[in-house]
Amino acid sequence: MDIEAFRKAGYQAIDRICDYYYSLEQRSVASQVRPGYLKELIPDNAPEEGEDFQQIADDYQRCIVPGLTHWQHPSFFAYYPTACTFEGILADLYATSATNPGFNWACSPACTELESIVMDWAAKLFGLGDHFLNSAEVGGGVIQTTASDSGLVAIVAARSLYTSKHPEAKLEDMIIYTTTQTHSLGVKAGLVLGLECRALEVMPEDKYALRGETLKRAIQEDVGRGKHPFVLVATVGTTSSGAIDHLGEIGEVAKSYPSLWIHVDAAWAGITLACPEYREVAQLDNINKYADSFCTNFHKWGLVNFDASTLWVRNRKHLTDALDITPEFLRTKEGDAGVVIDYRNWHLALGRRFRSLKIWFVLRSYGAEGFRRHIRQGIELNKHFVSLLRSSSDFSLVTEPSFALSVFRLMPPSIVSTEIDKEKLEATLNDLNKDYYSRLSGRNDIALTQTKMNGTFCIRFAIGAARTKKVHVDHAWQILQEEAQATLSAWGKPEAAT
Amino acid sequence: MDIEAFRKAGYQAIDRICDYYYSLEQRSVASQVRPGYLKELIPDNAPEEGEDFQQIADDYQRCIVPGLTHWQHPSFFAYYPTACTFEGILADLYATSATNPGFNWACSPACTELESIVMDWAAKLFGLGDHFLNSAEVGGGVIQTTASDSGLVAIVAARSLYTSKHPEAKLEDMIIYTTTQTHSLGVKAGLVLGLECRALEVMPEDKYALRGETLKRAIQEDVGRGKHPFVLVATVGTTSSGAIDHLGEIGEVAKSYPSLWIHVDAAWAGITLACPEYREVAQLDNINKYADSFCTNFHKWGLVNFDASTLWVRNRKHLTDALDITPEFLRTKEGDAGVVIDYRNWHLALGRRFRSLKIWFVLRSYGAEGFRRHIRQGIELNKHFVSLLRSSSDFSLVTEPSFALSVFRLMPPSIVSTEIDKEKLEATLNDLNKDYYSRLSGRNDIALTQTKMNGTFCIRFAIGAARTKKVHVDHAWQILQEEAQATLSAWGKPEAAT
Repeated sequence: MDIEAFRKAGYQAIDRICDYYYSLEQRSVASQVRPGYLKELIPDNAPEEGEDFQQIADDYQRCIVPGLTHWQHPSFFAYYPTACTFEGILADLYATSATNPGFNWACSPACTELESIVMDWAAKLFGLGDHFLNSAEVGGGVIQTTASDSGLVAIVAARSLYTSKHPEAKLEDMIIYTTTQTHSLGVKAGLVLGLECRALEVMPEDKYALRGETLKRAIQEDVGRGKHPFVLVATVGTTSSGAIDHLGEIGEVAKSYPSLWIHVDAAWAGITLACPEYREVAQLDNINKYADSFCTNFHKWGLVNFDASTLWVRNRKHLTDALDITPEFLRTKEGDAGVVIDYRNWHLALGRRFRSLKIWFVLRSYGAEGFRRHIRQGIELNKHFVSLLRSSSDFSLVTEPSFALSVFRLMPPSIVSTEIDKEKLEATLNDLNKDYYSRLSGRNDIALTQTKMNGTFCIRFAIGAARTKKVHVDHAWQILQEEAQATLSAWGKPEAAT
Repeated sequence: MDIEAFRKAGYQAIDRICDYYYSLEQRSVASQVRPGYLKELIPDNAPEEGEDFQQIADDYQRCIVPGLTHWQHPSFFAYYPTACTFEGILADLYATSATNPGFNWACSPACTELESIVMDWAAKLFGLGDHFLNSAEVGGGVIQTTASDSGLVAIVAARSLYTSKHPEAKLEDMIIYTTTQTHSLGVKAGLVLGLECRALEVMPEDKYALRGETLKRAIQEDVGRGKHPFVLVATVGTTSSGAIDHLGEIGEVAKSYPSLWIHVDAAWAGITLACPEYREVAQLDNINKYADSFCTNFHKWGLVNFDASTLWVRNRKHLTDALDITPEFLRTKEGDAGVVIDYRNWHLALGRRFRSLKIWFVLRSYGAEGFRRHIRQGIELNKHFVSLLRSSSDFSLVTEPSFALSVFRLMPPSIVSTEIDKEKLEATLNDLNKDYYSRLSGRNDIALTQTKMNGTFCIRFAIGAARTKKVHVDHAWQILQEEAQATLSAWGKPEAAT
């Protein structure tokens, strides 16, 4: 394809993306295709001769778009939102147009320098302490692909630091702490690293948040049996319910165990720190005081296209000591002189995309105020949703709403009043809500996801897509009520169990 | 930004990318900025109010483009090429326009299904055995970010498989084998996983390739002292010199140690397998016979924009056994039924970009024949370069050229003839070539990188950018001669050492 053919195909792509967004609301939220649909549309082999690009572009519309679930649809309330903004799309376009692997400063100085600068912008936007700033040259910030990567990098740095101070510690005896509500990234890091991962208990009465006492007991037990707990993955805003661990209590406990690295995973909720009024609940002071590393994802609720997980560390040396490899073929005079950051030593891989560009575009186009407005709007919409939910006696919140997330279930008086055995009631409610969720997930005009907390099956309602407005929440509520009525009408009838 | 503003900014971005490519050849290959240049152009904080997008787009040109090193410049011969094609740019644009984190089939069925299909296309294009095909449902292919990620995933799977069969093996006793010429990804995986990495010796007379005997001796030594070597990272096309390990010999040795996982890293050279005439030298039969996992990067020489590292495994169960985590909030009916691939269990993170689209666009637009033509052209250009190099007595190849890579140094008779002590001669030649490289890297019309092999400082010349033609190789040769003359003229004069 020559330059003029690219211009033509590029204009068309832009036009078709415009069409996509104009028609977004009329589409099914979740893709309606069946497993294996695509192999019926695409040949088994690459073509021998090159094909006309127009045909390829048309096949994107014909074969791929129907197989997309539209995370940008205003009625997408599943998982957590994955932000997509036009500014992010444009930044990705510029970045890929001059693609480079960015592992060294010299690979493309702009990539390293912009990342270093926008990570400071973001740190200041969130109120992070000066020790996290790149400009302070002690700690610093780096963009990873996902919160899993951020967590894994932090855990590797923690393990490396711990073993340097405790050379007697065997890997077999080292323990990663999470809670039962921590994102699966904690367990996965354990699998990847071959280390034990211990999930600490959290209680419904604590809103599923980790208490200092629980951590303290675990450390005492584990140290007592010769184990080496070396890192805790604490969470601000868990995936299931948005729970916020008690970082203040945790930090106090950790004072007696200074070798315990505290990684704060705020993948979803971290961006609320942009709003001063949420800094207390999102635990800013404790993050600044106690966190050795902190992660939030701009690519969730933060208006930046996937992937853009931002990770800050209190001490960059702990990262680079763990990950620095400089073979001859990667040496540069700037790297040797130590006057630049070589981000390859701040993450797992070598090459890296130019991700800072999309954060830069978004923060400039929205401005700090626009960014805050988006967050506040999500939280306001959730307050509205909660008020609707509370207006019906058939529904019950499973735990307190958290920012823009509510977790609820059907809990109709007609069933609660007829079952006095608590265990049986819970089993019945779980069955009822599985039926209910199954109906909801069969619809194409809304997307929601399930979760289970301490045995309770429940449904998550996560607001935050850039285009979601009050009318969409109201529409969702209407669907939730309709399907609740249908579920309850069918309940107890013979076919309901199938 | 609303849809119409996006259309306008999108057209402009396309036009400016066209301008960029029209002007590419007139630009400096490497960025000429100094460390810290960008913080003089950009404020310390995100703006409070949103800014006009035109200003942001203009600042991309003003602040960022001068800080880019142009990996697509036809005179870029450094590292390895990082492919960029218009088809890849367009695919990335479509992919980011409907961004989703793709961790489950249900996230967006098209993403999983297209990845599964194009990985089979690529496997067939390369002649990989049926056991590597997704459609065979035993092994399979998955796109990772980089060869480092692919290697790390393979090593994690290998460790998990090994410890399941040898529960007595302590992590402290487990060994990753690489060679001294293996890409730093091997050592880095050792750092990340906290495992010992042993670099086996390779010899210049073997063209820096690993021999079976060397591996056999190492295994005997290590097993003898109670160690557990569990994985070998073998290479087809090392970074320094394109060396190709003797996979046949390695495979024969490994027959006596069936627990040794063989990962073949062909990050750069693997795509030559598309051409039947290179399959013997690139060891296709041995890869099919012995490799437990195989990786090549489309994003190097393979015309697909960064990132697109393709990894195949002989047995997908070894991957998913090592990495499968399915918390309640990620459960889906298709995943539970086992009728779909959930790629989250095939890589380290959870979320993933829609990368298969760019491989699909490129393979269709070029066709298998066009893809092969690109590879053949790179190899032909390198043959031409080698003939130029051999025409001058001042230059010497340090090892045999490999595909589209030559590694050479200045070795003028005037110096060789005056120094009979071999060690002193080598030291002198290293100093001379460092001077020479320093001159070359000061130029803005060419980009090259250095390496060191068994103590010999040398210069790499890697061909493969999509726009490099004979005229650019000829121009490079002219520069190499000019700077050689300048280096030799200055050599021995007092200021030469500074």
